[in-house]
Amino acid sequence: MSNLPNVLWQQTLGGIAAPCGFQASGATAGFKASLNPDLALLLAPEGAICAGAFTQSLTRAACIDLCCDRLQANSGSVRAVLINSGQANAFTGDRGLIDSLRATRALADLLQLKEEEVLIASTGIIGVPIPMQKMFSTLHLLVDSLSTEGGTDAAKAILTTDLVEKQIAFEADLGGRKVRIGGMAKGSGMIHPDMATMLGYITCDAGLPYQEWNLMVQRAVECSFNAITVDGDTSTNDMVLGFASGELLDAKYMESLEVGLITVMQYLSKAIARDGEGANCLIEVEVCGANNNCDARKVARTICGSSLVKTAIHGKDPNWGRIIAAAGRSGVDFNPENIDLWIGPYKLVEEGKPLFFDSQTVSHYIKKRFLGNYLFDDMVAIKMNIGFGDGRGLGWGCDMSDQYVRINADYTT
Amino acid sequence: MSNLPNVLWQQTLGGIAAPCGFQASGATAGFKASLNPDLALLLAPEGAICAGAFTQSLTRAACIDLCCDRLQANSGSVRAVLINSGQANAFTGDRGLIDSLRATRALADLLQLKEEEVLIASTGIIGVPIPMQKMFSTLHLLVDSLSTEGGTDAAKAILTTDLVEKQIAFEADLGGRKVRIGGMAKGSGMIHPDMATMLGYITCDAGLPYQEWNLMVQRAVECSFNAITVDGDTSTNDMVLGFASGELLDAKYMESLEVGLITVMQYLSKAIARDGEGANCLIEVEVCGANNNCDARKVARTICGSSLVKTAIHGKDPNWGRIIAAAGRSGVDFNPENIDLWIGPYKLVEEGKPLFFDSQTVSHYIKKRFLGNYLFDDMVAIKMNIGFGDGRGLGWGCDMSDQYVRINADYTT
Repeated sequence: MSNLPNVLWQQTLGGIAAPCGFQASGATAGFKASLNPDLALLLAPEGAICAGAFTQSLTRAACIDLCCDRLQANSGSVRAVLINSGQANAFTGDRGLIDSLRATRALADLLQLKEEEVLIASTGIIGVPIPMQKMFSTLHLLVDSLSTEGGTDAAKAILTTDLVEKQIAFEADLGGRKVRIGGMAKGSGMIHPDMATMLGYITCDAGLPYQEWNLMVQRAVECSFNAITVDGDTSTNDMVLGFASGELLDAKYMESLEVGLITVMQYLSKAIARDGEGANCLIEVEVCGANNNCDARKVARTICGSSLVKTAIHGKDPNWGRIIAAAGRSGVDFNPENIDLWIGPYKLVEEGKPLFFDSQTVSHYIKKRFLGNYLFDDMVAIKMNIGFGDGRGLGWGCDMSDQYVRINADYTT
Repeated sequence: MSNLPNVLWQQTLGGIAAPCGFQASGATAGFKASLNPDLALLLAPEGAICAGAFTQSLTRAACIDLCCDRLQANSGSVRAVLINSGQANAFTGDRGLIDSLRATRALADLLQLKEEEVLIASTGIIGVPIPMQKMFSTLHLLVDSLSTEGGTDAAKAILTTDLVEKQIAFEADLGGRKVRIGGMAKGSGMIHPDMATMLGYITCDAGLPYQEWNLMVQRAVECSFNAITVDGDTSTNDMVLGFASGELLDAKYMESLEVGLITVMQYLSKAIARDGEGANCLIEVEVCGANNNCDARKVARTICGSSLVKTAIHGKDPNWGRIIAAAGRSGVDFNPENIDLWIGPYKLVEEGKPLFFDSQTVSHYIKKRFLGNYLFDDMVAIKMNIGFGDGRGLGWGCDMSDQYVRINADYTT
């Protein structure tokens, strides 16, 4: 990514409905005991293409199969996605697929689209089917309230145990043309995406060939959603969909667009990690000096996922031994004698040897992050150099608190 | 293991010092703030052989290298092992190896053995060296108190955050000859052994060729210590040593001996899982119908290691969806439509479809285990059939409680 045109991506409002031509809405069908919004709709403009990344779990939900099949059959020509929260509709027998088909058919009728142009995603409790009557009686309202202002409503309707909605939009001037990329996501628990994560949706109002967009989405997922972990559990319903629509983009701005796409996806990924169940801070692990980027990301994610590292951070304990132990079991080959390690600005290990450091000072650095502003200055930064290679990668996670256990012990089937 | 001679292994007393000719002792050097016993010694009779299995972590402690080297150089002819708790002596720079060498040299002098016949193991905080003066001034006492009654003292001295000592002995009549196998272990946290676990020691008073004993130990480790997980974190200091000594055993009893060895190792493995930090029950996952035993064990261990399964059990919640989701991300190939799943005697899923079951009843089954007697009736049994193969395997873990987080957030460097 060298010699890029001088492009600046700036944050803007509107989430997934920010890009030109996209509309969204959210409604309450009554799927959840809380009676919070639980049904979201995203409608892409005519001619839009959609690229997807899906869970690699063998025990995946019927909606995942439906989305994969339709994206492949239509070479990405898809116009709408319906998302319900409350029931994962995974492992619900034949009914899972039948209900997914019924829902997309009913929505296609209302939107006057072909059934194959509509996708469905579900998140919530595994083994529980979607209450279809509630869904059918809410679809009308959902379609009627579609608007370019509906991004926040949609972002709220896809949440389960999340505390805050996760949406973002960026815009840039690409050769005199304004291009916007928007996104929303949900996360919270069962977060250890394997090729995709628990519901991420991206919109973009620049057109490009499907193959190119698809590859761009896969690459961006790899260094964003696939770099986070909350609890090591890959979900049955992981899904990222990226829609692109609009006039074809000048090829010389392709790399700039990818920078924007990665920016949006990384923001959403960090928001998911920060809002991990019971979390008090975001943990960012940067690994450099690896043989390749893939190795670096693997080490970074192993550290982020270590229960012992997560509980140490929760205890404001600069326990570098646990960080190094996690790197050592990551499956990546490196020489421990080359390890340099920092927590925040403090160097704790140099060339494999522990340095003297004031434990109170480093503990105070972590403590301050716990009191920081959400996704602004509440990030504990860990940096590790493992050798002399060019490989570099980031991983994100969160601390593990007593609250994590309570949430998951009390969240009943 | 068919057509075995009719051999019955029965539990007996004495732990690692139960087999004929073995002696053990424990003492307090003052390595831990608690001033609990912290130094253990095991002495094997002349002519003993020792086979070891060690952590596969790249960031392993110097004592691991020392043990590997000496076992290999001496083809297993090793007589003694010294074990300290409180300091892992991992990642302590050159000093790690130097201190390990000094300790084994001093002990060899006292025992009148060759330095190469003495091993050392350490467990405790990473990055902290062993206080050598305290060790040197305690070695005399440790050697003087060696006895055939010393098994319990040794088992106590190797503990860190463990709540109870873990030791066992079994004996059997092998063709008119009484053979005993004893063992002790420590566990608690950073437990996800990769080829070996955090300190397990086995003794046996039947002789056999080193190669045969070595293979037998590796196989038994695979279906015992390598089948448990507490927190998914593989330690820097994992080690299992198995000593065998005595008159050569008749070849026709080899398989019977292996049954005894597996019995001892599985008992210790379950004891480690049950005493996982903050645990209230043991979880045993049995997987059958896999393509091979290795696949079955992989699925079983993934389920045992899932934070979401562990917290669900802690919440007495028969959340079968999380169990199936964990199996789906295990990396093992199977058809979800073949899944049958039981919690205790209750079948929850049949041929991939959820059955109706009374959630209260299954929840009550789990609750009763929480009130059960330690390692007697406090085990939550999960059984999953994943297909039609002959592969079968067991995995062990424990529930995850708020207490787990508190222990690891408060355990300071």
